Amino acid sequence: MPVTELLPIRDVTACCAPLTREAISVEDADAVARSLKALADPARLRIVSIVAAHDDQEACVCDLQEPLGLSQPTVSHHLKVLVESGFLTRSKRGTWAYYRLVPGSLDAVASLLTTV
Amino acid sequence: MPVTELLPIRDVTACCAPLTREAISVEDADAVARSLKALADPARLRIVSIVAAHDDQEACVCDLQEPLGLSQPTVSHHLKVLVESGFLTRSKRGTWAYYRLVPGSLDAVASLLTTV
Repeated sequence: MPVTELLPIRDVTACCAPLTREAISVEDADAVARSLKALADPARLRIVSIVAAHDDQEACVCDLQEPLGLSQPTVSHHLKVLVESGFLTRSKRGTWAYYRLVPGSLDAVASLLTTV
Repeated sequence: MPVTELLPIRDVTACCAPLTREAISVEDADAVARSLKALADPARLRIVSIVAAHDDQEACVCDLQEPLGLSQPTVSHHLKVLVESGFLTRSKRGTWAYYRLVPGSLDAVASLLTTV
């Protein structure tokens, strides 16, 4: 999936009602599907989970490569998808890039799916 | 995605802690990714939404084809994925098949993602 197709999750949740309240429009379904696809990958779920479980919900890229067991370009690709889709932010400090969970981004997806 | 790879969402949520509590295992990430992939498709999101917004959260297959604007085999494929992944159940009554939202199935995914 080209990252240019991604709409940040904050825009998705601003646009769309919960899935079960009324039949979702074609456009909203496209946007929500893109956000779910950004998460629907084992490596990206592990990245989000490692970052979220870290102190301050922030992790250095140097903390990710070894537990993931993936090449640096592969990790970079997944990080880029997660940043473009609004789940992580990236900041460079010294040698390393640090990735932080965007507060509320996972809850925003959850709120689209929840029925209660 | 072959439907045989799918694990029903009730098994996924039984196995897995919320994503942000601790770093998710490789096996759990695979299972959660498969459930998210089952939902991460515009047509399947629309099907789930149409069914969920219907009376009694149940809809005849005859209610789906026209609003979706998709061929019958395509609709059948998406319905099969949603049944195999545990989001819908299917029952045949007379000429038509009826699809019902599995209570709690969307909330189960939401609970894996929610941080609060």
